[in-house]
Amino acid sequence: MTSTDKEQAQTFLHAFEGPEKLLELWFAARTDEDVKSLRTVQRSVWEEVLELVHCSILSVISNGSITAYLLSESSFFVFDEKVILKTCGTTTLLGAVPKIIEIACACGLTVVDVFYSRQNFFFPHKQLAPYTDFKHETEYLDGIFDGGCAYQVGRINGAHYNFYNAENRISTMSDEPEATIEVLMSDLDQDQMRKLFYKDTFTNKTSKDCGIHDLLPGAQIDEFIFDPYGYSMNAIRSDGAYATIHVTPQQGCSYASFETNLIMDDYTELIKKVLAIFNPAAFLVAIYVEMGVKAISNFRSAPVDWSVFPDFKIGDRSVTHFQHYDLTVVSFESKNVKATAFSKPQIKKRASYR
Amino acid sequence: MTSTDKEQAQTFLHAFEGPEKLLELWFAARTDEDVKSLRTVQRSVWEEVLELVHCSILSVISNGSITAYLLSESSFFVFDEKVILKTCGTTTLLGAVPKIIEIACACGLTVVDVFYSRQNFFFPHKQLAPYTDFKHETEYLDGIFDGGCAYQVGRINGAHYNFYNAENRISTMSDEPEATIEVLMSDLDQDQMRKLFYKDTFTNKTSKDCGIHDLLPGAQIDEFIFDPYGYSMNAIRSDGAYATIHVTPQQGCSYASFETNLIMDDYTELIKKVLAIFNPAAFLVAIYVEMGVKAISNFRSAPVDWSVFPDFKIGDRSVTHFQHYDLTVVSFESKNVKATAFSKPQIKKRASYR
Repeated sequence: MTSTDKEQAQTFLHAFEGPEKLLELWFAARTDEDVKSLRTVQRSVWEEVLELVHCSILSVISNGSITAYLLSESSFFVFDEKVILKTCGTTTLLGAVPKIIEIACACGLTVVDVFYSRQNFFFPHKQLAPYTDFKHETEYLDGIFDGGCAYQVGRINGAHYNFYNAENRISTMSDEPEATIEVLMSDLDQDQMRKLFYKDTFTNKTSKDCGIHDLLPGAQIDEFIFDPYGYSMNAIRSDGAYATIHVTPQQGCSYASFETNLIMDDYTELIKKVLAIFNPAAFLVAIYVEMGVKAISNFRSAPVDWSVFPDFKIGDRSVTHFQHYDLTVVSFESKNVKATAFSKPQIKKRASYR
Repeated sequence: MTSTDKEQAQTFLHAFEGPEKLLELWFAARTDEDVKSLRTVQRSVWEEVLELVHCSILSVISNGSITAYLLSESSFFVFDEKVILKTCGTTTLLGAVPKIIEIACACGLTVVDVFYSRQNFFFPHKQLAPYTDFKHETEYLDGIFDGGCAYQVGRINGAHYNFYNAENRISTMSDEPEATIEVLMSDLDQDQMRKLFYKDTFTNKTSKDCGIHDLLPGAQIDEFIFDPYGYSMNAIRSDGAYATIHVTPQQGCSYASFETNLIMDDYTELIKKVLAIFNPAAFLVAIYVEMGVKAISNFRSAPVDWSVFPDFKIGDRSVTHFQHYDLTVVSFESKNVKATAFSKPQIKKRASYR
């Protein structure tokens, strides 16, 4: 082994899988019986669920709408009738699904909408089953839910976004618009990451100074800096808005994710602010939008001006229209990345044939 | 085995894979040397290529723009700088790629755009490698072309459309708009198929009477009825427009495909005409559109009114924007097919929590 080989082997051995598994379970009252909010469920009960996933609770914040747990590997948000569980590394997120349904059932609730998603892993062979192949995750979920639909949006042989949904709604549309936007960034600016998200440089001013506090203005913030590096943050507002950030800053597997359910007429400036913090060489944006009955003016299926990221080459832009919502996925890569076209031929003017 | 089991086993043993593998290779002059049209290539040379694919030529028609070969399993269209090869069953289409490139090279041409696509197979385990999994087909093509991108549009665990593209164009846009529309239909009306596409009922008036001649008006038509059943048709016009239809009419694996490169302001009526012939229980429409520099008025990325198929339930509708073109894929299934939602709960009005 050469010195470079050894370095690469070391990097690989210690590589951390930043890209998260993300689950949203939406519930509604099962029958006429009395229902209890999921927020009445004791922390100790959720701790049992999180044990199945191989996560533990680091801290918790709460307001009138949301209880937000910061986890050893990502985040868990509990609403009255909804949970959002996001975990990274080699966690086994889907193992929690049956138990969460059981807990919700005891509250008088039943599942009405299921979302499970993740981008392509950097190190898929490090994952445990069924996470080695999205087909297997789909089979697992199909064993629990009827009528689920699974998609792979983006390139099979490149950046893509895996997505599963099963829904069982009575109403055709929710009252209010709903949205989730994710900005999934890789190959982060190493100088910047070294300054911001390492235990020895992080201070109680770091996240404010670097712009994290501006992403969800007025939010209560719960953050954690890992030793020797790594950063997680939950932000919640009493109006039900949340944001969460998770950062794997180290070379060789650097990755950061930003997610929020904030409803905005235009997400362009928000995405720009997020990119300024991490300065990634590649990123993917996924936006779920449900218009809602009371659609707000200007709220479109993907309220972003995709042309304003001049340092990036836009990859594929895909919009999928489902029954109740639209999913837009757009990938970008730095213009410095090598051209993807194959061996350049000399093409002269179109020949004319007789 | 019960009688029904035996019938099902028989059906399966004799099941034919109607869904086609579809390849388009676009070429341009390689250097300043003189180039020859691909249409100057001898039939015997193409026969060697088609041997690799396990197809033979049944008949041929030609005009000033296109030479159209009707094959034992589907069709082969040759233009001056483009070939379209479409084959069904367990044919080994991709085996032809290196040989076609070699032939084009001898004409002074080089590849500038590659498209390979197919819907999900009904009987994937009957296919030979690499066609058992689209990932393998992608790997094969990635071995030939640099920078290829592969996609799976639609449901991983249901109807979907697999698609591979590698391009190496100098110009950002073609002069003229280009389009390919495919209507891929399954579970066809058995009474209608029995009347139309069986050797013992087919006459020289069948295709005219059932509306096939209206799909590409004014075209020269080359058709073939197989024994005991099955139908193939190529249609070409001197303006460069083509259409092709392939029908597997029999119960248990019924399937029909319609494809054309006709440019239209609105494809809605055309799709309706195609559906009227086959009356399928499910269908998928795939439309590739390249606007072209001289974009014609009203030509949109998917010029179809998707709301006018009242007997069908619209599935997913996905639009992917690539650098030079847009791909729209929409799936439909009959409203008589069982509901896909999972165990219906009783959902009462939203509970309020305190």
